[in-house]
Amino acid sequence: MPEKFHLTGFMLYSPAPHTQLSWVYPPEKIRHPWHSIRYWEEIAQTLERGCFDMFFFADGWAGGGEVGTRYAIQFPTHDPVTLVSRLSGVTKHLGFAVTMSTSFYAPYMTARKLSTLDHITEGRIGWNVVNSLNTGEARNFGMEELLPHDERYDRADEYMEVCNQLWNSWEPDAVKMDMKNRIFADPDKVHRIDFKGKYFKCMGPLNVIPGPQRKPVIFQAGASPRGREFAVRHSECIFGVGGSAAGMKEFSDDIAARADAADRDPIKIIWGAQPIVAESESEARERQQEIIERIPIEAGLATMAGHFNLDLTKVDIDMPVSKLPQIDGTRGMLDIYTRDGADPTLKEIARSYLNLAAGNLVGTPEQVADVLQGLIEEGGGNGFQLTPAWYAPDYYRDIVDLLIPELQRRDCVRTSYRGQTLRDHLREF
Amino acid sequence: MPEKFHLTGFMLYSPAPHTQLSWVYPPEKIRHPWHSIRYWEEIAQTLERGCFDMFFFADGWAGGGEVGTRYAIQFPTHDPVTLVSRLSGVTKHLGFAVTMSTSFYAPYMTARKLSTLDHITEGRIGWNVVNSLNTGEARNFGMEELLPHDERYDRADEYMEVCNQLWNSWEPDAVKMDMKNRIFADPDKVHRIDFKGKYFKCMGPLNVIPGPQRKPVIFQAGASPRGREFAVRHSECIFGVGGSAAGMKEFSDDIAARADAADRDPIKIIWGAQPIVAESESEARERQQEIIERIPIEAGLATMAGHFNLDLTKVDIDMPVSKLPQIDGTRGMLDIYTRDGADPTLKEIARSYLNLAAGNLVGTPEQVADVLQGLIEEGGGNGFQLTPAWYAPDYYRDIVDLLIPELQRRDCVRTSYRGQTLRDHLREF
Repeated sequence: MPEKFHLTGFMLYSPAPHTQLSWVYPPEKIRHPWHSIRYWEEIAQTLERGCFDMFFFADGWAGGGEVGTRYAIQFPTHDPVTLVSRLSGVTKHLGFAVTMSTSFYAPYMTARKLSTLDHITEGRIGWNVVNSLNTGEARNFGMEELLPHDERYDRADEYMEVCNQLWNSWEPDAVKMDMKNRIFADPDKVHRIDFKGKYFKCMGPLNVIPGPQRKPVIFQAGASPRGREFAVRHSECIFGVGGSAAGMKEFSDDIAARADAADRDPIKIIWGAQPIVAESESEARERQQEIIERIPIEAGLATMAGHFNLDLTKVDIDMPVSKLPQIDGTRGMLDIYTRDGADPTLKEIARSYLNLAAGNLVGTPEQVADVLQGLIEEGGGNGFQLTPAWYAPDYYRDIVDLLIPELQRRDCVRTSYRGQTLRDHLREF
Repeated sequence: MPEKFHLTGFMLYSPAPHTQLSWVYPPEKIRHPWHSIRYWEEIAQTLERGCFDMFFFADGWAGGGEVGTRYAIQFPTHDPVTLVSRLSGVTKHLGFAVTMSTSFYAPYMTARKLSTLDHITEGRIGWNVVNSLNTGEARNFGMEELLPHDERYDRADEYMEVCNQLWNSWEPDAVKMDMKNRIFADPDKVHRIDFKGKYFKCMGPLNVIPGPQRKPVIFQAGASPRGREFAVRHSECIFGVGGSAAGMKEFSDDIAARADAADRDPIKIIWGAQPIVAESESEARERQQEIIERIPIEAGLATMAGHFNLDLTKVDIDMPVSKLPQIDGTRGMLDIYTRDGADPTLKEIARSYLNLAAGNLVGTPEQVADVLQGLIEEGGGNGFQLTPAWYAPDYYRDIVDLLIPELQRRDCVRTSYRGQTLRDHLREF
């Protein structure tokens, strides 16, 4: 029997997530516009119908400019932390994970919002820890630049320490709700933390009682050596770049070795993937072609500019991608273009950048299921994070109607939920 | 025909809002504990059944200590910004207002979260602007103290300017969603703000498209002269302290004169009130007595300590309240105790502090409706913010079953919603 794998659905709360211009769609087929709450509720309900582990939200605090605005390149991006609360009301089992940046949220605010969400979602919340990298984002918060890469991680280590202390500031049996003696909680079991570090000071206690999970499930996507060190220290699940079994194998072996050396339980790895599934292979290939042709080169370049913090007015688009600055979590996105010593220019990969379908996940449900199974068998890891290539409610509907039944027949994914919380789902197999 | 007035429901996302120990209730009558989402959904649906304008959330970023933890004195307090998103899913008309502090949220974050909520709630969101005053809160954010009172307002003026510029950074017709020409938005109609002030820098544009209200309804509770100046400059609705028609009249006349001098449209005023309504007067009086007797003096003192930023280990509880530091928005809470030259000690008012029912809003629906109508006729202003005195789902159920029909018979309040947005509700009469 094959090992089961996890499935998560990727989105930005935006007109288009990764794939540029994926908001373009025949108007008569658009049931709800992207900014309508029904659009998001429908996606969440579809993912739950497919027994996905969770609905994941990336995030960003800037964007715009001439190209970014015209094509909606990861812009606008509404606030996902506010959204998932609402989506938990139309689902019962599906987990949710939100990206919150250690650069823009104070630790007390992050700890409080996530603990509150743990209550509201009844234990279905996760946190994708990011440190942010983009100068545009910094400038919306009154900063000129963010800290250098490795120092951002030192600061983030301390940030996690503050959050963990806040989440532990209430002992598990502190709350009494004793009506007879009029004791809400035992003051001896609720503690100040009086944290004083290099970057943060915080008194505590947290003003939220422990929720069903006590602390959210922690996700991370560190790719650099320092990033991997951070991820292994703090996270329960890491997002890796899929695409090639060899790249996956290198990554999953390295994470396993690091976890082992740090005496931690094995850490789950979820790979990015963008299957394009249709009844027939030719239909899937046609759709893939349409998607790629729709993307102007400048739109792809704008996405890369955001991810690699490039000023396109100053960058040579004939530059080989090996020269791009090392930026955590996105650098790895280039792996699929630089296999076997290849080194294309920015311009050459612009149209397909982040369209992970550029890989071989295009075809019938059987064909795509074969590839997914093979990738896990050869590359290791524990599942896939899917990212839509077109109007997301329909993209996920097709995945759930076509691909999921095939994966369920192969006993690769769950056919019903067993646990209550997001952590239960991720630990189920 | 009497002028209609507005009704709003006050809460903290906490075991007990203003009235100390109001979480104590016969266990067999508790349908949902305060931290369960159903508790909040039920309150929201009850307020909507009563055609309230909105559900209002105060907020706080600290609390605890020996007494605060034992009795749950405005502690714990979960995050209301996350909650209202969920509550909008079980209501269609009810507005929501959240308190967000200019001391702890960066302006870009506030503007973004509120614009996102404007989309999620479909135009039903408001913002209660507070500057925070509490040292405990500051210490959870790495600060030793907050700015002095008047400088907090100077900073807040600039904060509002940043938010307003962000909310205007998208021209009304900027978004095209032009599928044929693949234009999401017109880049010439989405603007950076490049704000550089004394306290804030922000580049913009906001990464949220304009929602149904474009900007949230702005609420404020300034009581000091500088606070009133701020409120008249920025808000559409002010919370005032009710209780005595004379105090209300002074306040509403002053706000009207200030609005007139500033050439602003009249600003709505909503008065705090805590009616205790029952089928018979004796039943209501009995209930009032129970509430007051339940409150230990130390619990009332702890509430005052939080509101007036007092360190109780250093304060003489026999001090007359006239000696309390001038703190905006709460100072006025003492008005009902200092009428006609009275000057009780902290200890003397501890049990009744913030239990506005200490006034004369206790009795049958007819008696309470008489008082409310009289207060508006003599004191001016535009409505009441009710604050529960016991288990909130039942408190509001009683208000909606007993008091609202009486007010509706008198044509004092709406019998159905006419508008779509919170701003529509507040402008309806």
